Amino acid sequence: MVFKLNIRLEKDTIFVCENSYSQILLMNDSRYPWFIIVPKTNTLEIFNLEETWQLELNNQINLISIFLKSKYPKSILNIAKIGNIVQQLHVHVLARSENDFAWPNPVWGVGKIDKYDKKDSIILINEFNQYFDRHYETLN
Amino acid sequence: MVFKLNIRLEKDTIFVCENSYSQILLMNDSRYPWFIIVPKTNTLEIFNLEETWQLELNNQINLISIFLKSKYPKSILNIAKIGNIVQQLHVHVLARSENDFAWPNPVWGVGKIDKYDKKDSIILINEFNQYFDRHYETLN
Repeated sequence: MVFKLNIRLEKDTIFVCENSYSQILLMNDSRYPWFIIVPKTNTLEIFNLEETWQLELNNQINLISIFLKSKYPKSILNIAKIGNIVQQLHVHVLARSENDFAWPNPVWGVGKIDKYDKKDSIILINEFNQYFDRHYETLN
Repeated sequence: MVFKLNIRLEKDTIFVCENSYSQILLMNDSRYPWFIIVPKTNTLEIFNLEETWQLELNNQINLISIFLKSKYPKSILNIAKIGNIVQQLHVHVLARSENDFAWPNPVWGVGKIDKYDKKDSIILINEFNQYFDRHYETLN
């Protein structure tokens, strides 16, 4: 298939990295460290992904989780596939803290996004990519 | 470990079924068909679950997904681990439709819950359990 990122996701995020399975994006909202995995598939629901794909998706969710939890040890991770507004399959992985903007409510649709200063997003993305390059192995 | 369901989860849900890995609950809110998986663990984050547990959790998420999607073919599934308010590890699996109460927003914390008539919850739970008994195999 030819993968094309949904236009809304493209507008709201910053590209982080990709492989044959997925793109990983950073939500351009400095209120929360918030990554999004977009599997390169036309499937809309996780249960319809082939088993290998599901394992790969979980592998990526775990790695992002470990990255976030090691960087923000007191955080609570929110992991979600919603898809009500943007149907293209994508999974949110973000770290919440007790003094963040939406706490203790979920983040979706709450208040206005607060875009990153470009240098701050570059620092975070570089840190993430260094981590990911060290620890990520595709399951194939 | 001795598993003890969080008191808030206990109050807001109806017991559906359980095995050695988890309890499955029905959110007592008739606005959405909404199941909750509570792994029997003290771990607060999915990435900390052993691999077998993670596979089992995904297995259960998939089965609930297939049940919901076959019952509500036009629905969109929302799957989420949040844990901001109730920290005990639990995963929401629910079916959304374009005319439901909170659409297109997430369901958490939106409006007041609308409890099931007891007979309606019994019908849904029986249907679910019949489905689950037919299709569920633990991975061990």
